[in-house]
Amino acid sequence: MKAVVKTSAERGVNYVTDHPDPKPAPGQVVIEVAAASLCGTDRELYEWTPSAQAFNLDLPVVLGHEGAGTIVEVGPSVTNLRVGDRVALESHLICGQCFSCRTGDAHTCERTRIIGMHIDGLFAQYMAAPQDICLKLPDHASLEIGALLEAAGVAVHAVQRANYAVAGRAVLVSGGGPVGLVVAYLAQLMGAAHVVVVEPNPYRRGQAEQIGALALPPGDEVVERCRQLTGRRGGFDVAFECSGAPAALPTLFEALRRESTLVTVGHPGRRAEIDIAAHINKKGITLRGIFGRRLWETWEQTMLLLDSGRLDLDWLITHRMPLDRIDEAIGLLTGDAGKVLLIPGKD
Amino acid sequence: MKAVVKTSAERGVNYVTDHPDPKPAPGQVVIEVAAASLCGTDRELYEWTPSAQAFNLDLPVVLGHEGAGTIVEVGPSVTNLRVGDRVALESHLICGQCFSCRTGDAHTCERTRIIGMHIDGLFAQYMAAPQDICLKLPDHASLEIGALLEAAGVAVHAVQRANYAVAGRAVLVSGGGPVGLVVAYLAQLMGAAHVVVVEPNPYRRGQAEQIGALALPPGDEVVERCRQLTGRRGGFDVAFECSGAPAALPTLFEALRRESTLVTVGHPGRRAEIDIAAHINKKGITLRGIFGRRLWETWEQTMLLLDSGRLDLDWLITHRMPLDRIDEAIGLLTGDAGKVLLIPGKD
Amino acid sequence: MKAVVKTSAERGVNYVTDHPDPKPAPGQVVIEVAAASLCGTDRELYEWTPSAQAFNLDLPVVLGHEGAGTIVEVGPSVTNLRVGDRVALESHLICGQCFSCRTGDAHTCERTRIIGMHIDGLFAQYMAAPQDICLKLPDHASLEIGALLEAAGVAVHAVQRANYAVAGRAVLVSGGGPVGLVVAYLAQLMGAAHVVVVEPNPYRRGQAEQIGALALPPGDEVVERCRQLTGRRGGFDVAFECSGAPAALPTLFEALRRESTLVTVGHPGRRAEIDIAAHINKKGITLRGIFGRRLWETWEQTMLLLDSGRLDLDWLITHRMPLDRIDEAIGLLTGDAGKVLLIPGKD
Amino acid sequence: MKAVVKTSAERGVNYVTDHPDPKPAPGQVVIEVAAASLCGTDRELYEWTPSAQAFNLDLPVVLGHEGAGTIVEVGPSVTNLRVGDRVALESHLICGQCFSCRTGDAHTCERTRIIGMHIDGLFAQYMAAPQDICLKLPDHASLEIGALLEAAGVAVHAVQRANYAVAGRAVLVSGGGPVGLVVAYLAQLMGAAHVVVVEPNPYRRGQAEQIGALALPPGDEVVERCRQLTGRRGGFDVAFECSGAPAALPTLFEALRRESTLVTVGHPGRRAEIDIAAHINKKGITLRGIFGRRLWETWEQTMLLLDSGRLDLDWLITHRMPLDRIDEAIGLLTGDAGKVLLIPGKD
Repeated sequence: MKAVVKTSAERGVNYVTDHPDPKPAPGQVVIEVAAASLCGTDRELYEWTPSAQAFNLDLPVVLGHEGAGTIVEVGPSVTNLRVGDRVALESHLICGQCFSCRTGDAHTCERTRIIGMHIDGLFAQYMAAPQDICLKLPDHASLEIGALLEAAGVAVHAVQRANYAVAGRAVLVSGGGPVGLVVAYLAQLMGAAHVVVVEPNPYRRGQAEQIGALALPPGDEVVERCRQLTGRRGGFDVAFECSGAPAALPTLFEALRRESTLVTVGHPGRRAEIDIAAHINKKGITLRGIFGRRLWETWEQTMLLLDSGRLDLDWLITHRMPLDRIDEAIGLLTGDAGKVLLIPGKD
Repeated sequence: MKAVVKTSAERGVNYVTDHPDPKPAPGQVVIEVAAASLCGTDRELYEWTPSAQAFNLDLPVVLGHEGAGTIVEVGPSVTNLRVGDRVALESHLICGQCFSCRTGDAHTCERTRIIGMHIDGLFAQYMAAPQDICLKLPDHASLEIGALLEAAGVAVHAVQRANYAVAGRAVLVSGGGPVGLVVAYLAQLMGAAHVVVVEPNPYRRGQAEQIGALALPPGDEVVERCRQLTGRRGGFDVAFECSGAPAALPTLFEALRRESTLVTVGHPGRRAEIDIAAHINKKGITLRGIFGRRLWETWEQTMLLLDSGRLDLDWLITHRMPLDRIDEAIGLLTGDAGKVLLIPGKD
Repeated sequence: MKAVVKTSAERGVNYVTDHPDPKPAPGQVVIEVAAASLCGTDRELYEWTPSAQAFNLDLPVVLGHEGAGTIVEVGPSVTNLRVGDRVALESHLICGQCFSCRTGDAHTCERTRIIGMHIDGLFAQYMAAPQDICLKLPDHASLEIGALLEAAGVAVHAVQRANYAVAGRAVLVSGGGPVGLVVAYLAQLMGAAHVVVVEPNPYRRGQAEQIGALALPPGDEVVERCRQLTGRRGGFDVAFECSGAPAALPTLFEALRRESTLVTVGHPGRRAEIDIAAHINKKGITLRGIFGRRLWETWEQTMLLLDSGRLDLDWLITHRMPLDRIDEAIGLLTGDAGKVLLIPGKD
Repeated sequence: MKAVVKTSAERGVNYVTDHPDPKPAPGQVVIEVAAASLCGTDRELYEWTPSAQAFNLDLPVVLGHEGAGTIVEVGPSVTNLRVGDRVALESHLICGQCFSCRTGDAHTCERTRIIGMHIDGLFAQYMAAPQDICLKLPDHASLEIGALLEAAGVAVHAVQRANYAVAGRAVLVSGGGPVGLVVAYLAQLMGAAHVVVVEPNPYRRGQAEQIGALALPPGDEVVERCRQLTGRRGGFDVAFECSGAPAALPTLFEALRRESTLVTVGHPGRRAEIDIAAHINKKGITLRGIFGRRLWETWEQTMLLLDSGRLDLDWLITHRMPLDRIDEAIGLLTGDAGKVLLIPGKD
């Protein structure tokens, strides 16, 4: 079959047309991939950056950890799934036995493995997936939306981490990449009084404006506008740092009100300098971060919204490409694009 | 001045045209009432029911505890308010000294007094109001909306009591009176996946449908529909009992999922029978209730939404009447009406 | 082997000496039972009350759902356990697939089965136990303490349900049976300012006093003393209803302060009358209940304390008997006893 | 009267014997100071460090913001207090009007003033104190204990900020100064499974051991011991950084388990470097800080414990001195001392 494979520990990936078709091990199903989605981590893996190397990949491996498809084969010991089921995929494989897994925090499982890194992933025509990470889609939801749910789930988790304190509140989002945009979209959906997205790229600011947010470039104006919009409240209620740039933090700490919450979503490549005395102690800002999706509260929340028809993510997709254009797709990730889909069935 | 006065401890009220104009005591302002709103308690006071008698009114008293107006006179020791300010009124006067007041729970102040019960209220051309209960309205907000905020605040408090767990959730509202409708409206605004309003009166069901809720008459279908809408979730995430009828509770307990929340908003006139073993213990439903508004988190939340332009309550007003039609206005409260306003300046 | 078996759907149990020795199925281990503990449910099963019948037992079945022992045989597919391991047993078998199980609330699993009801239990010399419910004991903990952990876990769960709001607080416990006593013990351990246990039986009041609580018989004095102890606070911070008697509730609602929490632990056999207007709404008391133990937060909490040496439960054991004295043991449950252990190895 | 006065914006303080006796303004009482306590801030004020200068003192001013005494004179408009009342003092004067004050977070009041900085404080024979900051002591509590409550309240607030998650948990305290020691003491009181105090000074480690904690010097052993004590839990549940040294943080982040909480209590003089990707996101540690005491939940909690007799702080006092030995007292703050009291009545 066609697949995008990371063969060796160096820059680049290989598009191949003769990768062996997967067979389902016990507890696995084989999925015909309808759409796979790229994220920033895929670019890191492509470029083979230090943080990519830190993932300890089992090479060679088919890349791709976001996607959806239809089950075409069911292995032994599989329950609740059958051929023809349309599923989205969670990307984390958890152990179920460690302290985190047994206390409801499986997103921090100490033995987490990830599809497209430690087992063959979704940038292929077919994938053999453990049954536990397959989530059935509602009938009316498209497989393309399904391919976005792993990434959208990061945004849902971010909102959950803030105890849904976007509803009715003033919400600041740093970074207008796909995850930041979905956070902003959810804030809008959940009745935020104000949603401000800080993003240097004008194309992405345009996307933020399309979903109803106020989009601003980084700079002094951000703090000023946030204070102006909130009056005696003195600042925004919650901020989500989705850019991964430590340089974004000081503005967020300034633009937030006392006793507010800052959720870090992006993973900075280096340490951030925090003024604990001024911001954490005296101003009382709580700093929390997320990793992946809550298993399985995030999926349950997302599926409830998707099933009800209130979750629309079509606007996020800007490009659809066949697998053999993987290099071009990677290049789009830092440019004028929303979510880029790989469509294995496309020529 | 014109006023509606409760003169004696018996059924009925008096409309008078010669009530003395109020003068501001220290710390008070005099408000020209633009609009006052009626609630179920006004009907209780009119009918002089046992629960009305339990309020221990300081008779005679001008009725009316919901309303808004413009400041026309400022007494000594008033800070932060001036003539011309447009204000909505909180109805509870709190002591500021008791354990509740000093620990952030002033809505349960043990010495709470209420305007229109213990000091002259808003069913009049003018009212002398303590400065602490006057909340300035945003410029673009009408005084009529202002007159709804005390009642809407009960709905906001209900949502706050559920930790805003309406956002993205399946929300059940029992009772389609004004408070129930505003709860449903807020749930819609905050991105609820499903909002179901249970209400026997077809007129009110129509209002619920206008704001996008699914409106059902009480009956077996409610539980069935809730389960059907939520699938493997097994029931709704949160319910708000706004009718005050204990008979409404069993349906809510059945329609809720395990580990959900039931917020009681209406004040039943008699005890309710609760199956603790089945619903509180085994099903894990948390039962919480509210009284008034959180002082002042509820107002701060409401004002943020109002100021941002996202809070629209115009749809709730169905009748506007002069003070001398008080008897007719009272009659509307149990009938085909949303919120009924008394307009002291109207002939 | 020796065992206590419920053979048929009627009053009574059978002590037998020729029950077949259990063999471990895949994923199971066989435990030599060192001690099993009785709880109120065992008396219900013995008497064959309506609530016992509601458990839908798979008859015949070896009774006993509290106990500990040493692994003597390990079945296929067992990981992490080996012969010689000393383990306490969780009594609930959960499905791992339902909404509750997947969202961290497995204690409300909709397919819960219970050992000693739906599979053979612990009132026997040996038991075949699924590996998931076996929890290794710290080296220094006795197997007798291990036999108490299922019941003690109910108390730990109750404290967790109150968000540990016993620490430094005024804590009221209704019912001085083993679970109520462990709640009181935990409150003492966690620095409660006051612990009051309400219990009619003088023997049990004596036990409560031994662990440092103030023990009172039911009656008017309870409310008075609680208010006196808390001064301007106006009442106790949290109450735990462990007796299962609906008649106990009014005193608790009166003795609690505004904005406090009432946790129901006992399962009443009939509905309770609750004054929602006065207690849930106006006084702001949150009503929550528990069922079983949080899987696995409760065990993790209990084991941390046990391992640290700070958890002492020896005082709770008042009787140790061989299996053939089961009838006498059942009789003790409503009398002057703390926890009654069955020791299968005892003659 | 005798007093310790900061006269000018430079190093040092003045002990004087002719400071004018204070007179009570409306709403004030005059207190005869029985004992005043020193804290690290007093040393900063003495040394006139940049952080001391940042307080914007109203010079000249009598220093001292921790203390207790007996009311000897009552000014106009004072309610609830009378001559002879024994009171401890809160040090923060709050506005009551800002967003923080009106939403239950008065500890972050944006117009906070502090006694001993912005009005004359407690290092004197008498002090004129606003009635709102006077808290009556239980009869059996000594005035010396009363003088410790402002500082102890910081520790209580730290525990409250962690939602009392010291009860039954593994608790790490960085810094064995008075506040850190009281945090450790409270953790012991509230049934912590383990309490580890990290402190370089052997004298202070000795104090930590006296209250039952495990005291360790900073170094690699800390992380190792914490992991060893918690086994599969993988680390401690909560940490309190009370030293104010940013260098202490990496050890705490390492020694904590996934999904734990780090509360910053000390105010670092410079920014701290935080590895957001590893510790906040992937490990899921929540970072929160405190400032002062929650007004008034912290005092209500402290007084409940004090009144019940369960709060003992005598062990913390190591030195008692007259006012004229202020220089020596300041010198003790960085040395082998617990809490140092100034006793104005002492010769």
